[in-house]
Amino acid sequence: MIDIKDRVKSAAAAAKITTAEKAVEYIKDGMNVGVSGFTPSGYPKAVPLALAAKVRAGAKIKINLCTGASVGPELDGELAKAGALASRMPYQTNKDMRNAINAGEIAYTDIHLSAAAQNIRYGFLKNRRGIDLAIVEACVIKDLGNGQIGIVPTTSLGNTPSYVQTAKQVIIEVNTTQPVELEGMHDCYVPLDPPNRKPIMIEKPEDRIGTTYIPCPLDKVVAVVPCDVTDKTRSLAAIDEDAKHMGENLVDFFKAEVKAGRMPKNLLPLQSGVGSVANAVINGLVNSDFEDLTVYTEVIQDGMFDLIDAGKLRVASGTALSPSPDCLKKFYANLGKYKEHLILRPQEIANNPEVARRIGVIAMNTAIECDIYGNVNSSHICGTKLMNGIGGSCDFARSSFLSVFFTNSLAKKGAISSVVKFCSHIDHSEHDVDVIVSERGVADLRGLSPKERAPLIIDKIANPVYQPELKDYFERACKACGNSQTPHILTEAFDMYDRLAKTGTMVKK
Amino acid sequence: MIDIKDRVKSAAAAAKITTAEKAVEYIKDGMNVGVSGFTPSGYPKAVPLALAAKVRAGAKIKINLCTGASVGPELDGELAKAGALASRMPYQTNKDMRNAINAGEIAYTDIHLSAAAQNIRYGFLKNRRGIDLAIVEACVIKDLGNGQIGIVPTTSLGNTPSYVQTAKQVIIEVNTTQPVELEGMHDCYVPLDPPNRKPIMIEKPEDRIGTTYIPCPLDKVVAVVPCDVTDKTRSLAAIDEDAKHMGENLVDFFKAEVKAGRMPKNLLPLQSGVGSVANAVINGLVNSDFEDLTVYTEVIQDGMFDLIDAGKLRVASGTALSPSPDCLKKFYANLGKYKEHLILRPQEIANNPEVARRIGVIAMNTAIECDIYGNVNSSHICGTKLMNGIGGSCDFARSSFLSVFFTNSLAKKGAISSVVKFCSHIDHSEHDVDVIVSERGVADLRGLSPKERAPLIIDKIANPVYQPELKDYFERACKACGNSQTPHILTEAFDMYDRLAKTGTMVKK
Repeated sequence: MIDIKDRVKSAAAAAKITTAEKAVEYIKDGMNVGVSGFTPSGYPKAVPLALAAKVRAGAKIKINLCTGASVGPELDGELAKAGALASRMPYQTNKDMRNAINAGEIAYTDIHLSAAAQNIRYGFLKNRRGIDLAIVEACVIKDLGNGQIGIVPTTSLGNTPSYVQTAKQVIIEVNTTQPVELEGMHDCYVPLDPPNRKPIMIEKPEDRIGTTYIPCPLDKVVAVVPCDVTDKTRSLAAIDEDAKHMGENLVDFFKAEVKAGRMPKNLLPLQSGVGSVANAVINGLVNSDFEDLTVYTEVIQDGMFDLIDAGKLRVASGTALSPSPDCLKKFYANLGKYKEHLILRPQEIANNPEVARRIGVIAMNTAIECDIYGNVNSSHICGTKLMNGIGGSCDFARSSFLSVFFTNSLAKKGAISSVVKFCSHIDHSEHDVDVIVSERGVADLRGLSPKERAPLIIDKIANPVYQPELKDYFERACKACGNSQTPHILTEAFDMYDRLAKTGTMVKK
Repeated sequence: MIDIKDRVKSAAAAAKITTAEKAVEYIKDGMNVGVSGFTPSGYPKAVPLALAAKVRAGAKIKINLCTGASVGPELDGELAKAGALASRMPYQTNKDMRNAINAGEIAYTDIHLSAAAQNIRYGFLKNRRGIDLAIVEACVIKDLGNGQIGIVPTTSLGNTPSYVQTAKQVIIEVNTTQPVELEGMHDCYVPLDPPNRKPIMIEKPEDRIGTTYIPCPLDKVVAVVPCDVTDKTRSLAAIDEDAKHMGENLVDFFKAEVKAGRMPKNLLPLQSGVGSVANAVINGLVNSDFEDLTVYTEVIQDGMFDLIDAGKLRVASGTALSPSPDCLKKFYANLGKYKEHLILRPQEIANNPEVARRIGVIAMNTAIECDIYGNVNSSHICGTKLMNGIGGSCDFARSSFLSVFFTNSLAKKGAISSVVKFCSHIDHSEHDVDVIVSERGVADLRGLSPKERAPLIIDKIANPVYQPELKDYFERACKACGNSQTPHILTEAFDMYDRLAKTGTMVKK
């Protein structure tokens, strides 16, 4: 067995050390199980793998899995493939999980990431129960005395504090691959619920309001499980020409805003979505003249470590570290240096609209598609198939100082236009979209009515291959509706998807 | 001339008393004009009427009009008819204004009502200028000394504090029909902008954080204009059987939530949309056993005065009083009594997502239509024609403790189904809609995936006339998409609108 004695500072907790196979006995069919983890960082691995094995061996167990957001393959992938899940919330990105959701095998509730924990505390889960069992990864267990321990989280914080607080039973995985020096990086704070909630007293991204550990009564802890499976963080796609252009377009836009006096010289706290495009955009800032930047975001990716290396980032606040495997190595090797610039908070605080609006984040998120009026689809392919979910995009976009969305003008080698007549699914209405950036340019939509937005989006964002059709649609729609507020011809609004389904491309033959 | 000397306590301000016709000289073509007013309450009347007359007489003036929300006919109606407007934000409900917008004559920017003032302070208006001229209604002008006056607002607060603060020039209409006893009812507070903004320290609906007047440097005031035109508040439709059923359905739902321990006995602060249905719903509470209620909302309507009369309402916080003409008389006659229970705040605070989420409002808004997955259209008729706008619905729905939408199952005597396959316009995505109430029942959607939401919405909300078609669509869509996350057949998604356009009804022949 892996030796975790030096990491478990409470003798009473140490007495609960057991194997994943034993711990899994606490997981019963129909339970609401809340786990740590946000992106493939800081999620439990040993117990989920044992559960998958048990279900594969014939146990009839289907749980309702509540996470921070996406998690690693040992959890989402293995449990989905084993058929161990009845339902899933609030976000995922795993291929096997996605396939099971889109086959109707797992009921998936896609929830604003800042709202997931409070929804559970409010008793709003489908079965109206709270969390029955929490399974959380720790690097250290502290003895707080008076029957209390302190769980020191690892590479993410997610919903863990609320899951531990509300769960009837808690299983702690102590992961020996996670450095003990992670202690001190977290800021754990769970708000009271209405009518007793207080203001969240964060005025700057670096402000701390909580503890560096998650307090937990010892008598809730049913098992402590050693684990030496590493986080399976993902590589980022290489920054291609299009992504580079988007980053440059954004930097130029920022420069003009600063020059016009609408933004401070060091900008405002940056929020950046997850993934390769978002990372490429942040990279654009590494090569810019901006200094003393701050980040208040959900996920801390490679680009932000690069900004620290370049001496341009004062602080990055998030709920998860999600570096590429190479960047994770760099982080572990230089933990002391990076720790000075990083804070991990519960996602309820990292993504909190109250804080986002107060400090004035510049929200930068990726769109699957937008329509000619600037409505944005973040979650569905052709209106029906779930891609990942909304994640924190809505938390930030609406409450931002400025809401920017990125999209390549084309997808699938040109077979799909990212600018459509009417979005096949709408997660962000035009009211929450200030600026759209593609590799082709910037559509600055602030203060414009829908009929003023359309020509700009078609001109600056849409690809020339699709511009004539979109322009023609808009002009005919204006005529057909007598120039009403939002011109459409509903019988044609979705015809590009129909063409795609029938011919394999949205391009008109 | 109307005598306003006893209302203008500053001699320097009194020296600027002039006529509306003289004051109108300050309004130049292309100006951004910010006015007081929210619903037909507390808006300037004399100067707008003089402007409309001047434009009708041939003056070439088109202004960009920024209000709180909808305003009275002397302002929106007369200026629209006179052709005196180039653009309009952030909300309206006037027939002539709506027609001009839907004819493409006025560029209308529909903005979250909590965000309008900060957008202007941020410099995000289309022409990137702030407010050139503010025209605001007052009941009293106080002398604050040091070259400062205090403008005491009247029956609404809206965006007035920010317009006065940022305008280059200010015209004050002192309205003698507004009682001087209104003084003391307002709580004026303008937040600093990022990166300097502080928490908004409201923890309960009754908390006060500002001043009872709007401070204004005397040297900005270019004219003080007497006015004796009354607020043109609107009558509410009689409460019909359907509205009564909706109110009863809601009260039953609340009772069950309290019984289950998910809400306190006196509920949580109520937010209620504007109009007859919303008022009818509040009326349902007048006849219930609930006591010690609180309201944190946008507009204070008749039902809330009835709740005060019934001794059931501790406090109502809003940005505007919008009583019916009869209720306005009752309010004026008993101002002292009602004032103890009422607070008017800037709409940026009344509708603030930070406060709404902290205190946990129960958001209750009216939908034009919803789709089978619970997306909601609040603003457009058949996807193209603007009705009014989003108003504050998004401010509250997403940041609420619980987001409830109301809709009759039918509109236009049954020719229109309020439940459709795919909303023709989406202002609220399914993620912001917890509960839908119609006269037929309650669809409690909390914690459900889209495929679990659809049967419930069809069963509880849709009218039996349309249920078979919606059920058939949903079932075929599930098959066509292999049970994907959000089943649709995009080629059929809008066919009910097409049928309506061609046959005058959505009913299948």
